[in-house]
Amino acid sequence: MSDSRFLRACRREPVDRVPIWVMRQAGRYLPEYRALRTKFDFLTVCRTPDLAAEVTLQPIRRFRFDAAILFSDILIPVAAMGCPVAFDPAPVFERPVRTMADVEALHVPDPVAETGFVMEAIRVLKRELPTSSAQPATPPLIGFAGAPITLATYMVEGGSSKEFHGLRRLLAEAPDVAERLLDLLTRTVTDYLVAQVQAGADAVQLFDTWAGLLGPDDYAAHAVPYLQRIAEALRPYGVPIIYYVNGAAPLLEGIRTIGASVLSVDWRTRLDSARRVFGSEFALQGNLDPCALYGPGREIARRVERVLADAGRAPGHIFNLGHGILPDTPIESVHAMIEAVHRYGARGD
Amino acid sequence: MSDSRFLRACRREPVDRVPIWVMRQAGRYLPEYRALRTKFDFLTVCRTPDLAAEVTLQPIRRFRFDAAILFSDILIPVAAMGCPVAFDPAPVFERPVRTMADVEALHVPDPVAETGFVMEAIRVLKRELPTSSAQPATPPLIGFAGAPITLATYMVEGGSSKEFHGLRRLLAEAPDVAERLLDLLTRTVTDYLVAQVQAGADAVQLFDTWAGLLGPDDYAAHAVPYLQRIAEALRPYGVPIIYYVNGAAPLLEGIRTIGASVLSVDWRTRLDSARRVFGSEFALQGNLDPCALYGPGREIARRVERVLADAGRAPGHIFNLGHGILPDTPIESVHAMIEAVHRYGARGD
Repeated sequence: MSDSRFLRACRREPVDRVPIWVMRQAGRYLPEYRALRTKFDFLTVCRTPDLAAEVTLQPIRRFRFDAAILFSDILIPVAAMGCPVAFDPAPVFERPVRTMADVEALHVPDPVAETGFVMEAIRVLKRELPTSSAQPATPPLIGFAGAPITLATYMVEGGSSKEFHGLRRLLAEAPDVAERLLDLLTRTVTDYLVAQVQAGADAVQLFDTWAGLLGPDDYAAHAVPYLQRIAEALRPYGVPIIYYVNGAAPLLEGIRTIGASVLSVDWRTRLDSARRVFGSEFALQGNLDPCALYGPGREIARRVERVLADAGRAPGHIFNLGHGILPDTPIESVHAMIEAVHRYGARGD
Repeated sequence: MSDSRFLRACRREPVDRVPIWVMRQAGRYLPEYRALRTKFDFLTVCRTPDLAAEVTLQPIRRFRFDAAILFSDILIPVAAMGCPVAFDPAPVFERPVRTMADVEALHVPDPVAETGFVMEAIRVLKRELPTSSAQPATPPLIGFAGAPITLATYMVEGGSSKEFHGLRRLLAEAPDVAERLLDLLTRTVTDYLVAQVQAGADAVQLFDTWAGLLGPDDYAAHAVPYLQRIAEALRPYGVPIIYYVNGAAPLLEGIRTIGASVLSVDWRTRLDSARRVFGSEFALQGNLDPCALYGPGREIARRVERVLADAGRAPGHIFNLGHGILPDTPIESVHAMIEAVHRYGARGD
């Protein structure tokens, strides 16, 4: 496992070629995933360890990605906090969280007692990955959670939305309620990720999809301290912490202080710009525009080459998209991307 | 008119205090606007010069803003191109534009013959602003249009959307169709803005709400050249060109090349960061987070002071929000913001 390209790249050690995995690689763009979903709904797949493991393995079998990522949803621990959520397919909350009473009705769930199916899926995967992968090195398994700001954004909004003003409004109107909610989420996410690592996750990714809606001052005040607490609590376990934020560009200065070892940036932040702000002490992950996969193969190859050039040749780059892969992405485009990473990302080390 | 704070600030000339206006200042947060809308629907207001002028004047009467902005919608010229749009309240297109045949069915409208109600509203306003404003100097009138990327984003998507992948997909899948559409939009927007200036607009703002979805390379390739053509065509008329982009941070290098004189940035891009990239040859507009107006007055004042400090004391700052004012913004918060700008933005020049 110490030889996996992915973990070596996370630690900024030399690799034979740049590793690649894809956000939402287990998902709707795969015919085998859609076939399984005709039989089971989304939450059933998340909550049934063998099904979650099966879906996690699908893209590993098909594409031999360099890392597997647990199939689940960032709102699973939120539901366990006492905030039930349905998927339609966008999340819909029975009760949005907007007042101190709403927050006080929530609790920090015991991750094993209340989301044990996630830990069990990780254990199943750790058994099955070595035989399912048919690769020289077993791909590592990435666990994940939503970051507090992003989870709070959904909980306050009560579901999906175009602009998600709710949390920023709450931060202005009732900052004590917002801070109490963020504290509760921080404890929840910390326990949840520690449990994933104890179950066998080799790395964890924090998804902060909506933090890019905050201005830099709000991000420094209401996101960074909580992220630092999570990173601090995970440090003794020695696993790489990957932090993804969508719309990272104005927040780079804050992002470099949260204590993550790998910074995953969206498609709008060029990796050379990110490198200039972050310095050399982080690995970078990313960041092809998911929409590039609608283009012809030669153009995908050109854009992959550009991403690799922006990342530079120093160790510490994990190739990925700059956001989750889109449901109607052509399979042949994924092959074209992988081939281009194999070709232009060879490092001969 | 040459003495107006707004136009002086656009030209980076000294002012007695920083001017202020607000994006969407004529709109739903105003009780008098909502009262008028119980009698007339949105498109009727846009298409009736006296009604559009009346709505434009409402915030001038109530708040004495330093500039008026024509009440209209960025999709008005798109409808005139042969792409009908309804408002529900989000825009819905009868026929999304996705193929070369779709683009070829459109035309560049004659702005006077096909959107003459806009030019007539401007003429009405130029007559009424001096008497309606009850200010020492008549507030200038800002005309506006959507920028080509933003208009194309709506037309390809066929309406509003959470993520607006359509145009980025088209740019990858059928770049010739996308470029043809962007060219048509550029000619439409140019003619439309020239007609507004000829009717009396003292400045124009280009709204590029969705350009922030493009990565920097795509922005340089598919947005900048068209924006430069528009700015070039407007230059002989000598009016300030204000360019607003939402999510500007990763695009600042490109934005400085488009030929605008005032750069209006969203709430996530600190004005001191923008200034570092733009240098001193531009005026800056912005950029309080619209959600700050949900907070208490003292906190609004603190945040206004911070924006003014970030902008610096050199001439060439127009105070504004970093995005349109939200429909449920409390009126007293608008007063608190204006008072703070009057207090902290006094320049004694």
